[in-house]
Amino acid sequence: MKKPENRKWEVLSSRYVVKEPWCTVRGDHVRLPNGMEFPSFYVYEFYNWVNVIAITKDGDFVMISQYRHGLRETRYELVAGSCDKADESPLEAAQRELLEETGYGNGHWTPFLTMAPNSACQNNLAFTFLAEGVERIDTQHLESSEDIQVHLLSEDEVYELLVTEEIIQALMSAPLWKYFATRRPRH
Amino acid sequence: MKKPENRKWEVLSSRYVVKEPWCTVRGDHVRLPNGMEFPSFYVYEFYNWVNVIAITKDGDFVMISQYRHGLRETRYELVAGSCDKADESPLEAAQRELLEETGYGNGHWTPFLTMAPNSACQNNLAFTFLAEGVERIDTQHLESSEDIQVHLLSEDEVYELLVTEEIIQALMSAPLWKYFATRRPRH
Repeated sequence: MKKPENRKWEVLSSRYVVKEPWCTVRGDHVRLPNGMEFPSFYVYEFYNWVNVIAITKDGDFVMISQYRHGLRETRYELVAGSCDKADESPLEAAQRELLEETGYGNGHWTPFLTMAPNSACQNNLAFTFLAEGVERIDTQHLESSEDIQVHLLSEDEVYELLVTEEIIQALMSAPLWKYFATRRPRH
Repeated sequence: MKKPENRKWEVLSSRYVVKEPWCTVRGDHVRLPNGMEFPSFYVYEFYNWVNVIAITKDGDFVMISQYRHGLRETRYELVAGSCDKADESPLEAAQRELLEETGYGNGHWTPFLTMAPNSACQNNLAFTFLAEGVERIDTQHLESSEDIQVHLLSEDEVYELLVTEEIIQALMSAPLWKYFATRRPRH
């Protein structure tokens, strides 16, 4: 299909509203194609994010649970993280996160889904990998701020978490629904 | 399945780092269960968001394309928006957005998916509705900052946009993959 015409805005100037290690907000003075201007359109800057659908040789999904302060809830999740530096590849970051958070590694890794967490006001992408045949090769190596429980769940249990919206993060829900749509259709 | 234990952080104090109409960032001084403290854990505050899989009586998907400054790209999207006020219901917001952005309305609306855009550092939820049997009942009513093209696409075209990752927003990719996993399995 034809791509829609890119109706780009012109950036007249940029400034940082906040620039701290865990919070970078840029304000762009922009001009729209119709001539209208926004003096400060906010963009939240982040490194790219990654997550992984990791499945053992026995067919178990390597999942975690973790408290998330945005929603103030602890829920089941895929292993996820951020590219630590601008030059860490998404695959390296995903393999590092899986090993650190669960002790699992090896297996066959393939890119599975590319997403924009928020194309309107974030500058980053998120990448899901499918890691098949992973195995426990080490212990967890958590930072002192991390409090992560590892859960080996069956495919049916993961599907139930998805259907009941216990897995709620859009960046995890999208690749899991894609997995069940394309790899494990239930109909 | 059993919910994981909520390993909640204690909020010792809060302050707003930025509080402007389109950018509200809160810094929470928090204490973790292990006693560790973050003097400023950032939470981006937003109203809840909505989007809609709108399908006409003829089976066409009512899609839009729109420039998004975060990624600086114009792509195909679902109609989406924000609850305008804290007390606007997600259904009201979704119906308002569909009518304003495309002129389509009526039809049979059902809640389809609840997501967290980012449970780690945002306080809001996003709701997708499935609107079946919508019809054109008005013209577009855009704000001067909105530059939105309407596209009627077939189910096959939407599936192609999803598979090729032309539709890239996680909040749209998740419900569309759920739609193809549960309503229109392709296998």
